[in-house]
Amino acid sequence: MVSALEKIKLAKNASGSLAGASTNTKNDVLAQIAALLPARATEILAANALDLNRAVESGMTASLQDRLRLSHERIQAIADATSKIVSLGDPVGDVVRGMTLPNGLKLSQVRVPLGVIGVIYEARPNVTIDIAVLAIKSGNAVVLRGGSAAEHTNSVLVKLLQDALAIAGIDADAVQTVDEFGRDGAMVMMHAVGMIDVLIPRGGAGLIQQVVQEAKVPVIQTGDGVVHIFIDESANLDWAVDIVHNAKVQRPSVCNAAETLLIHKNAVARVLPAVLDKLVSDGVTIHGDQATAAIYEGTVAATEDDWIAEYHDLDLAVKVVENIDEALAHIAKYSTKHTESIITEDIQNAERFLAEVDAAAVMVNASTRFTDGGEFGFGAEVGISTQKLHARGPMGLQELTSTKWLVRGAGHIRS
Amino acid sequence: MVSALEKIKLAKNASGSLAGASTNTKNDVLAQIAALLPARATEILAANALDLNRAVESGMTASLQDRLRLSHERIQAIADATSKIVSLGDPVGDVVRGMTLPNGLKLSQVRVPLGVIGVIYEARPNVTIDIAVLAIKSGNAVVLRGGSAAEHTNSVLVKLLQDALAIAGIDADAVQTVDEFGRDGAMVMMHAVGMIDVLIPRGGAGLIQQVVQEAKVPVIQTGDGVVHIFIDESANLDWAVDIVHNAKVQRPSVCNAAETLLIHKNAVARVLPAVLDKLVSDGVTIHGDQATAAIYEGTVAATEDDWIAEYHDLDLAVKVVENIDEALAHIAKYSTKHTESIITEDIQNAERFLAEVDAAAVMVNASTRFTDGGEFGFGAEVGISTQKLHARGPMGLQELTSTKWLVRGAGHIRS
Repeated sequence: MVSALEKIKLAKNASGSLAGASTNTKNDVLAQIAALLPARATEILAANALDLNRAVESGMTASLQDRLRLSHERIQAIADATSKIVSLGDPVGDVVRGMTLPNGLKLSQVRVPLGVIGVIYEARPNVTIDIAVLAIKSGNAVVLRGGSAAEHTNSVLVKLLQDALAIAGIDADAVQTVDEFGRDGAMVMMHAVGMIDVLIPRGGAGLIQQVVQEAKVPVIQTGDGVVHIFIDESANLDWAVDIVHNAKVQRPSVCNAAETLLIHKNAVARVLPAVLDKLVSDGVTIHGDQATAAIYEGTVAATEDDWIAEYHDLDLAVKVVENIDEALAHIAKYSTKHTESIITEDIQNAERFLAEVDAAAVMVNASTRFTDGGEFGFGAEVGISTQKLHARGPMGLQELTSTKWLVRGAGHIRS
Repeated sequence: MVSALEKIKLAKNASGSLAGASTNTKNDVLAQIAALLPARATEILAANALDLNRAVESGMTASLQDRLRLSHERIQAIADATSKIVSLGDPVGDVVRGMTLPNGLKLSQVRVPLGVIGVIYEARPNVTIDIAVLAIKSGNAVVLRGGSAAEHTNSVLVKLLQDALAIAGIDADAVQTVDEFGRDGAMVMMHAVGMIDVLIPRGGAGLIQQVVQEAKVPVIQTGDGVVHIFIDESANLDWAVDIVHNAKVQRPSVCNAAETLLIHKNAVARVLPAVLDKLVSDGVTIHGDQATAAIYEGTVAATEDDWIAEYHDLDLAVKVVENIDEALAHIAKYSTKHTESIITEDIQNAERFLAEVDAAAVMVNASTRFTDGGEFGFGAEVGISTQKLHARGPMGLQELTSTKWLVRGAGHIRS
């Protein structure tokens, strides 16, 4: 059997084939993927059934089973999403900056693929295609490590991706999976210095922390959102009710869902009951401080754990603050630097919040659910970076590129 | 004594003071530094004398002593360099991208400081000021670890930097040194997850590899240049002679100096003797393959070690290749991805070289010595990144920033 390291080497050796491909050729690959997905649905669903049977036997929760499950409709949806990436602009070759130096030397900084991208992610077969498609469109080879629970499905999907590459004349080795090596495969990826140009872990905080601690290759941290909304003294009541509800209830399991509500003490009587009523009517449990419990029946007493909780569920921590300073201090202490939003009518507080909060996305009078590559118009996203190096916020095609300087002279020497 | 970790925490806690400072305030700090340097020359030179005495006793080489030595003239030159940074544009607050979504939500991606930059560097006191000045101008706190041999000098310089910050109303803790902890200080920096946003090692390949292997915080690799020049079949003779001489001889100790010369077999008789004559006349030793030795007297037989050598001295490896394919393959195998240059009159070969060579800077008919922040018009540089993530090539002020998304709504919720 080929080892995990050998598979990563295959991806590296094939990366030049993809990096040098024209946009047309890369779009051909994507069109092939979109065509092969429904054409191979029977084979894909058979593999998926194997994974699902094993999942049921192992007692996997219903919601995780749902993420693992494919159907004809879901396969077509993945194919349609792939077709959409064809129409997105290709960042490779874009000139970022350029200048002619006083001595006549011509410089241009152009976008180039990163090379080989490693992704460690959860057992969701749609992610296998989504990520490979973004990598291919941006000219990058990719090494995938999906959750073991999706191993059979991913194996069929990776073969499909390789076939699509080959049909378009690209080295099929540019897409690899190390699923069959389990955790060892992930470990080899983390140590593949000089072969993997960037490693992107997607999943729970535990996985991400493990990768950050263990990896020797460059890592981009994603996800992980203890997201706050601060209702300022002057907040518009209707906006507060709708935004907090949308941010908490629309899709509580995702990283841009709100987890903690902060509210100015002078807005409590006017705004808080209506905000909480609407949440509670949709089944949200309120974990509040004493001031919240004093005015709102049914509040569960919040502990220190609630301020650091990423519930990913119908729970919300609520704290009454003295003023915007206390709100900013609380956010600075507990934020995971994903998304933070203020609801205010006060322009000075809005601008201060935008300037002082250190996060990938800082919002005024908007739901935190908007921090998303699709919503931002990127077409798709590999993840949402919560670190400051290279990429911050939703990562689309451009965030999967590096640059190089092209220098054109006519016998130029340095004096 | 305050521990190394406590000093890093001080820098982190002070980073907001600098991140929120206006360009005018940051320029005030720089003006204070430029004024304090000559004003405190006596104190600086006394500390420098202590370091130099210890260096002489420990048998430090003359060239390293020279890098450690300050004088009134050198102090003034550092002050003048600081004053120049005042006139450079401040990248913080620049809008990188912006758009209004179909639903009216307004997005802008703006540059923000990285936060806390850690730098591990050699015993060169001028670098202490250079790096701190770039960090301050870009709104970043900085933790410095210079070579132990410069400890007394750096201690006085860091105090000067802190005084300049305080005079301008910035939290003086934003500049810290961990020099007094020796290698332990560097180790603490490498593990300061959540406190140091990026760590930049400057120095030999050994130091850089150690940091890459050991660091848990994000790292940007710099330096390390096995730089090639390829003389193509059609190369202009005069350009070849001048460019190779300039790239090798002008300053052989730096990372953008040429280390290996590749030459097309059909250019050997016409071009190689003149190129090597000019090098040898300036004391360069030629480490050549058999084909080189066959036509050029005095060639030292090259071994495998010569193709990976970063001589940093008046030595050049020379290899005759069959064609551009062999040149590209040699570069792909041995390049450290810093700078590579082709000398050619053939437009197709020039474009192919620019497209296929994977390096921070790829050149046509120009000396590799141009890969430099000063030459590129950045005003100064923290180092030259040879990695692909975040920054590639010379790192100026812009490369010391991250971004954040500002989102302005009017009660917007996601549907």
